[in-house]
Amino acid sequence: MEKPALTNLDINPLLKKRWSPRSFTSQKVENDVLARIFEAARWAPSSSNIQPWRFIVGRKGDKTWDMILESLVDFNQKWAKLAPVLVLSVGNKISSKTNKPNKIFQYDVGQSVAYITFQVMQEGLFIHQMGGLNTEKAAKLFQVPEDYQVLTAMAIGHKGEPELLEGDFVKMEKSDRDRLTAAELVFEEAFGNSADFSAIR
Amino acid sequence: MEKPALTNLDINPLLKKRWSPRSFTSQKVENDVLARIFEAARWAPSSSNIQPWRFIVGRKGDKTWDMILESLVDFNQKWAKLAPVLVLSVGNKISSKTNKPNKIFQYDVGQSVAYITFQVMQEGLFIHQMGGLNTEKAAKLFQVPEDYQVLTAMAIGHKGEPELLEGDFVKMEKSDRDRLTAAELVFEEAFGNSADFSAIR
Repeated sequence: MEKPALTNLDINPLLKKRWSPRSFTSQKVENDVLARIFEAARWAPSSSNIQPWRFIVGRKGDKTWDMILESLVDFNQKWAKLAPVLVLSVGNKISSKTNKPNKIFQYDVGQSVAYITFQVMQEGLFIHQMGGLNTEKAAKLFQVPEDYQVLTAMAIGHKGEPELLEGDFVKMEKSDRDRLTAAELVFEEAFGNSADFSAIR
Repeated sequence: MEKPALTNLDINPLLKKRWSPRSFTSQKVENDVLARIFEAARWAPSSSNIQPWRFIVGRKGDKTWDMILESLVDFNQKWAKLAPVLVLSVGNKISSKTNKPNKIFQYDVGQSVAYITFQVMQEGLFIHQMGGLNTEKAAKLFQVPEDYQVLTAMAIGHKGEPELLEGDFVKMEKSDRDRLTAAELVFEEAFGNSADFSAIR
């Protein structure tokens, strides 16, 4: 099953193809693929090049994977258990340049996860991010220092057919994608005033 | 001048080519290109599909461009004045689904800016993001509502030669790029414990 972005505009094919499935096959992700995926994250830009992103990576069958799964809310555990790779994103709250709070660290971590996403798609894999996890539990399980904050979890693997999922997840997997219009997002002159080019579709 | 990511790993060519120049030529960015760039942002993923990202886009010669430039710190004004397109990213602090604070909105906005970045590179352009701006001033100039927060600015355009820049910026433009190692970023079992595959280079 494919669920490309519903657009007639000629955006990069990997961006067009990307969506967040919940169904993954049991096929493993090789270590050289993982190395390239996190290499992409490494070269993301960040404020003052602070690079506040850290990742904890579990492969199905290892202790890390078990602990990440255990940190997810029940809803996410039910489908994420299919994924061969589970990852936690962690952000450094303190600037390594100034030793003061870094106000923009979450923005920069999100950005590096998008670089992961892009390389995941380049490898022919898919990724599904989750905000639904017990971040305190994850921080405790992985001994995350005080200066760092667990932000999200993500499932990575080869996309499976919807029927690998249980119950309502099959229907959710097949549901349509939707987004706000460009006119609702892109402004000029004043907030809320649609930019002229947002009418191009 | 090119400044590709210093890696032997075979990452996506656009990610490898990307860096953040300060020098831009005077060549305009056409409206259909802008439409594709912000279309890419539109299809980024977000927590509960809230899409907390908003953008204010100025083209050199228009009022919006002038107001964004005016919002930048002096250091950034000195080079960003070359860029044909200046953009502000703005995030919705409140979840449009629950009407409660969205703890992850900055992460999601950062992610959508990475989608902008990929499409910018796809178009043969470059982008340089800035945290150095007076966000209160920008919020006032563009009448940004209370529930929203101005986060970053970005310059977009055709990359220029370093010599278009003034003074120390020429040297900065030519300086080497550096990053933490994968072993410092990617962990397993416990925070700080390098994942085995992080040794693959």
